[in-house]
Amino acid sequence: MTTKTESIPDGTVTSPKGFVAGAVFANINKYARYKLDLGILLSEVPCIAVGLFTSNKMKAAPVLLCQQKLPGNTARAVVVNSGCANAGTGEQGLADAAAIIDTAAEMIEVKPQEVLIASTGVIGRRLPLDSITEALKRIELSPDGGHSLAKAIMTTDTITKEVAIRADGSNFIIGGIAKGSGMIHPQLGTLLCFLTTDAMVDPEFLAAALKKAVDISFNMVSIDGDTSPNDTILLMANGLAGNTVIRQNTAQAAVFQETLNHTCIHLAKAIARDGEGASKLIEVTISSAANTADARSAARTIVSSPLVKAAIHGNVPNWGRIIAAAGRSGAGLVESRLDLYIDGTCLVKKGNPLPFDKNCMVDILKGGEVSIGLNLNLGEATATAWGCDLSEEYVTINSRYTT
Amino acid sequence: MTTKTESIPDGTVTSPKGFVAGAVFANINKYARYKLDLGILLSEVPCIAVGLFTSNKMKAAPVLLCQQKLPGNTARAVVVNSGCANAGTGEQGLADAAAIIDTAAEMIEVKPQEVLIASTGVIGRRLPLDSITEALKRIELSPDGGHSLAKAIMTTDTITKEVAIRADGSNFIIGGIAKGSGMIHPQLGTLLCFLTTDAMVDPEFLAAALKKAVDISFNMVSIDGDTSPNDTILLMANGLAGNTVIRQNTAQAAVFQETLNHTCIHLAKAIARDGEGASKLIEVTISSAANTADARSAARTIVSSPLVKAAIHGNVPNWGRIIAAAGRSGAGLVESRLDLYIDGTCLVKKGNPLPFDKNCMVDILKGGEVSIGLNLNLGEATATAWGCDLSEEYVTINSRYTT
Repeated sequence: MTTKTESIPDGTVTSPKGFVAGAVFANINKYARYKLDLGILLSEVPCIAVGLFTSNKMKAAPVLLCQQKLPGNTARAVVVNSGCANAGTGEQGLADAAAIIDTAAEMIEVKPQEVLIASTGVIGRRLPLDSITEALKRIELSPDGGHSLAKAIMTTDTITKEVAIRADGSNFIIGGIAKGSGMIHPQLGTLLCFLTTDAMVDPEFLAAALKKAVDISFNMVSIDGDTSPNDTILLMANGLAGNTVIRQNTAQAAVFQETLNHTCIHLAKAIARDGEGASKLIEVTISSAANTADARSAARTIVSSPLVKAAIHGNVPNWGRIIAAAGRSGAGLVESRLDLYIDGTCLVKKGNPLPFDKNCMVDILKGGEVSIGLNLNLGEATATAWGCDLSEEYVTINSRYTT
Repeated sequence: MTTKTESIPDGTVTSPKGFVAGAVFANINKYARYKLDLGILLSEVPCIAVGLFTSNKMKAAPVLLCQQKLPGNTARAVVVNSGCANAGTGEQGLADAAAIIDTAAEMIEVKPQEVLIASTGVIGRRLPLDSITEALKRIELSPDGGHSLAKAIMTTDTITKEVAIRADGSNFIIGGIAKGSGMIHPQLGTLLCFLTTDAMVDPEFLAAALKKAVDISFNMVSIDGDTSPNDTILLMANGLAGNTVIRQNTAQAAVFQETLNHTCIHLAKAIARDGEGASKLIEVTISSAANTADARSAARTIVSSPLVKAAIHGNVPNWGRIIAAAGRSGAGLVESRLDLYIDGTCLVKKGNPLPFDKNCMVDILKGGEVSIGLNLNLGEATATAWGCDLSEEYVTINSRYTT
């Protein structure tokens, strides 16, 4: 079954009923002056809340606090900052994050245990508590505030990532914002993503649905192979749409899953397209793999390969690098069965290079999106991964960003 | 026991007794005009020969041929070219490589089954058989020819990698040449390396010794995380030093192992230092890890991290990226036990950031070598990995290199 969904014009994390947000400039990072860097997302009523977090063994303080709170499965709000990751900060970092939660909770008049927290930015530096405490009091929450919140979580992102989607014939909406750009890799390929819905959803199904959606979206995005200590994806469902509770293995569950998938894939592709220094989106689809693990591994290895990424940056149809990356991915493959396509043009058929018009291929590569298709001709499994080209600017950005 | 070894001035792969080499320009790649690109290494007498090859499932034709020949454990010669990898070329590639072996064997008057082969360069293109056949006849072999051969295997390398080492009080020499530069990653971190010795060595011990030496040298080097279909390391021992056969678990075996280790580490570091676009060598040592696998994994993950590499390129002491990379390496670690050093200066002690003089640290990072030390304070295991910084030039090189 395929559910038809539509994006809501100007949709964002506050598009579902009952969510408000706001953001201010709190001067958290002196290198990002006058940029919104602190915000709050609030639901008018308690939400079922689920989350997924970094697999990095170095976990930032806000991640540790969220992981303590979430098994309770309810939340009202998230407080979030950019400019400082509050990672590598030990016990002091935990105390700082808890203090911010307390201040935020008092201001929005909810219990501290109902407030989640997230941070992104430089690792190894303390949050400026005084300026954050002062700034929190200036935050004004509104139903339009999702756009400001989307700006507040940006670091080296150049555009906000926002979306809200409704399935045909459904009365609920799923909205979301994300930030990405650097330190993005397929083990939870985002730094921060906040998802909201006004649907009433069974907590167990909500957790399973988030995991499924993230597996085929954020976990299939790679910018640079690095995984951050701060990766956080939160999904809050406040039930204000007034539907009957959505439970696993129902028709409504399938519609919810598909809507959530579309929301997450939209945000994941936006993150890939806006990778640090990126000039184009790369989409790699592996088809006819022996199994899904192989398909996923090959897709992610190709989209992560610095040599593939640099070649595409230079509009060079160096297809050998693509099959070499597939070869080292660990996926089962047989050279004499490989069919390779770039933007629909077949370059390799059953392992044999085909002649192609190089100038024509260079022109195709000059577009803003490059799609690579590799058919392993071994089985039935398919997977898609997204990434971006590797430019000189990526290096420039990351050799200047400072402690 | 530590064996004292000395490098032989101007030493190379033909420094051990009885080895000759030579190289010519065969016009294999039109983008590398007038550069030596085809060569032969020959031993006056049959050698015990062992090899290690790429783990990539896409194996180039020359790799497949060597893997067929080597279980026989003997060889007289290697024919090698740069400019074209003869990878992704299917059955035709195997036939081409076999034809080159036949021509070379005829010219140097040995049997084809005694000739090994290696290639490096662009993937997915056929070798120009006619010009190679013609050029092979022009090769002049000499005891000084190792230097020319070292030049002939270079692609984007900017300097040759050559060394010959003798242990104090030993009568044998181990020599070697290597090429690296791009597509270099810790699963056999080299494109090509040819090692020779005039020692008489038991074949079984020779294979074990090579594996040990490669594990702590080439397998601990990372330039860009990509692994080539052509990675080949060959070690030939011709016995002309006249020693008694070196067998496992003898004093002479330990001396041979250490000499081989030094030879391989010298070449591996030279490859890291000359990585594509590199301006400095990065050495990462993990100490007090719970086990060797953890130490190796953490060292390799840090030295491979694009964010760490870019920060070091920009002389930015962004130590948070180093511990974040350790955190995602899979190695067991406890944040509150970590001690981190950059060039001897302690930046983190028991997980707590220490104040440091930023300008002084920037000056330190401006040197040609950066050493990172991370003490996990969990156990006894140690490992060292080598890599280079990530520069804008890496991207420029790899977005222009062409099919």
